Amino acid sequence: MREIYLDNSSTTKPCENAVKAAEIAMRSNWGNPSSLHSLGFHAEQTVNQARETLAKALGAKKSEIIFTSCGTESNNTAITGAVNLLKKRGNRIVTTAIEHPSVLNTVKHLAEQGFEVIYLHPDKSGVINRDDIYAAINEKTILVSMMYVNNETGYILPINECRRAIRAAGSPALLHCDAVQAFGKLPIKAESLGVDLLSVSGHKIHAPKGIGALYIKSGVHIKPLLLGGGQENGMRSGTESVPLISAFGAAVEELPDINKQLNDMQSLCDYAKNVLIKTGVVIVNSKEGSLPYILNISVPGYRSETLLHFLESKGIFVSSGSACSKGKGSYVLSEFGLKQSLVDSALRISFSRYNTKADADELAAALLLATKSLRRSDI
Amino acid sequence: MREIYLDNSSTTKPCENAVKAAEIAMRSNWGNPSSLHSLGFHAEQTVNQARETLAKALGAKKSEIIFTSCGTESNNTAITGAVNLLKKRGNRIVTTAIEHPSVLNTVKHLAEQGFEVIYLHPDKSGVINRDDIYAAINEKTILVSMMYVNNETGYILPINECRRAIRAAGSPALLHCDAVQAFGKLPIKAESLGVDLLSVSGHKIHAPKGIGALYIKSGVHIKPLLLGGGQENGMRSGTESVPLISAFGAAVEELPDINKQLNDMQSLCDYAKNVLIKTGVVIVNSKEGSLPYILNISVPGYRSETLLHFLESKGIFVSSGSACSKGKGSYVLSEFGLKQSLVDSALRISFSRYNTKADADELAAALLLATKSLRRSDI
Repeated sequence: MREIYLDNSSTTKPCENAVKAAEIAMRSNWGNPSSLHSLGFHAEQTVNQARETLAKALGAKKSEIIFTSCGTESNNTAITGAVNLLKKRGNRIVTTAIEHPSVLNTVKHLAEQGFEVIYLHPDKSGVINRDDIYAAINEKTILVSMMYVNNETGYILPINECRRAIRAAGSPALLHCDAVQAFGKLPIKAESLGVDLLSVSGHKIHAPKGIGALYIKSGVHIKPLLLGGGQENGMRSGTESVPLISAFGAAVEELPDINKQLNDMQSLCDYAKNVLIKTGVVIVNSKEGSLPYILNISVPGYRSETLLHFLESKGIFVSSGSACSKGKGSYVLSEFGLKQSLVDSALRISFSRYNTKADADELAAALLLATKSLRRSDI
Repeated sequence: MREIYLDNSSTTKPCENAVKAAEIAMRSNWGNPSSLHSLGFHAEQTVNQARETLAKALGAKKSEIIFTSCGTESNNTAITGAVNLLKKRGNRIVTTAIEHPSVLNTVKHLAEQGFEVIYLHPDKSGVINRDDIYAAINEKTILVSMMYVNNETGYILPINECRRAIRAAGSPALLHCDAVQAFGKLPIKAESLGVDLLSVSGHKIHAPKGIGALYIKSGVHIKPLLLGGGQENGMRSGTESVPLISAFGAAVEELPDINKQLNDMQSLCDYAKNVLIKTGVVIVNSKEGSLPYILNISVPGYRSETLLHFLESKGIFVSSGSACSKGKGSYVLSEFGLKQSLVDSALRISFSRYNTKADADELAAALLLATKSLRRSDI
């Protein structure tokens, strides 16, 4: 049976060049970058080459990139580090109610310590409202954390408005962006975006799991989360994972032209929407203008998990909500105002550059078959 | 030129089975362990197999092991997590002055937040004194963090005394042990050792860089450092690095019988000491009874870094101090009471199971040659 992987927002298959880069770092270039001898020097060079690749891809300077072990570590480091830096200047943190758990649980922890956290919610039309952003950010706000693209729906958030609102309020706030689902998919230029901190992850763009990075704008001196030997310019102690850093660099180098790829993906996504809607059993939850790599749908009357396993039996892999929420009902879809019956029957389809229109056809056919084969749930 | 790698306490060459395990996880078993479909399930199984292997090696239960990205993260998680759990019960942290920077800088950070940190120093005979341990630990002590083996000298610390002293003082303290340099080299059984928390790292035992683990005794509910999707039983959020976790498991499985290996290493180390002393130019800094995997020496009159590069030119790789201190004069050797001239001319020789007596012969010959070829430094 042909396998059709449509769960690329959970994780992606590492590309061959990334695997090869990791192999080289494990088999021959395995020195400790901190060692003073040549084995260390070669390992350090490899790390710095990957850093340069990543910096270029993010429109950043090499010195502005630190490697972490994952997007979650990047988000934790950014948020905790920013708040620890600025806590004498204010008490307010502004974020959205549709962030990834690595942001939400970190700010929740800060709230327990006495920080005031303001959550922006999508309005009736399903967008984070400009006026709400301006109303939330004041001169006592020390951090604004807004994701670039929502991981369950593909909704693109108005990160630009945050920078403007911070300026308008005369706020000392640092602006953090969780760009895990946007990196490699939208043309991100950290500097023109106006963010101070930006998180990315390797395994969403065909690097192996276990590697992430954080952009820290020059002159922004957040406190590090991991303390120790002072690696990564003092910002992230711990021996560098040369194999995964090198693999991350290779995966970034292999990214196709972002804009061309985005056009192709829009075609694929539009095609998928069409064939899915034509089945008559599918409702599309993702809004127009969302990132076309992610398509959230519901099949009313059928539970997400039941559908997921039915599709799996046909060789098709999708997700119910995000992998990180592991089957729990999606708080994100509820925030977007979806009825509970649609939340309970939601599936996230997420594409990579390796998917084709034929994959969409098979998905649509399988979902139609599901509604004919499975018993309707009482949801 | 034959390469002789004698810097195994900095990092080790990944063993072939570890590399292969990583490859399989990157090429075919690349699902996200949190995904509900079979790709996720297979990845999760791989993670749990490695967890079982590690648990067995540490004399622990599977549920007591969490994977982290490195020894530094394990140490940071253990210390910060323990202190956050118990901060209402006391204010004192007891550690030693010869810990790894990932411990020292973490407790220093806590000291800046108002915690009282007591540093135990080696006494005149170069040991952490039992009486000092008992004197330092009182009923207000919430954490004792002591490494198992010192990373620069191989000195084995009296971790057992800590447990007894905690009991004697009626202290609520948790006992953390940084066992990064001991794991795979000494027979560690977490339970009989009486520790609550124990850190290990993969890349010191022939796994790739970027993976570590933390033993957390059942019933000890420290606060997690990384917050998010709740992976690793809520103790370490972030998508699991299946390739490196799998590689870590493979490296642990390939560890030879610890006691037999320890005997062999003692022979090798004794042999090396002999041939080095016979040169007439070498002083051995490591004390009798130290872990034979590490041999700290000095070549008086010659700077560490100069010696290191001379040896490198002969294909021999050693370290001056630890890789994590990157060439700075060793605070550890100073703590052991070494004269500055010996500190400045110190080298750390660290063995793995792949080293031979011939390696020691070549090292001795090269050091003798160094003293004949290099100009004496005024140190």
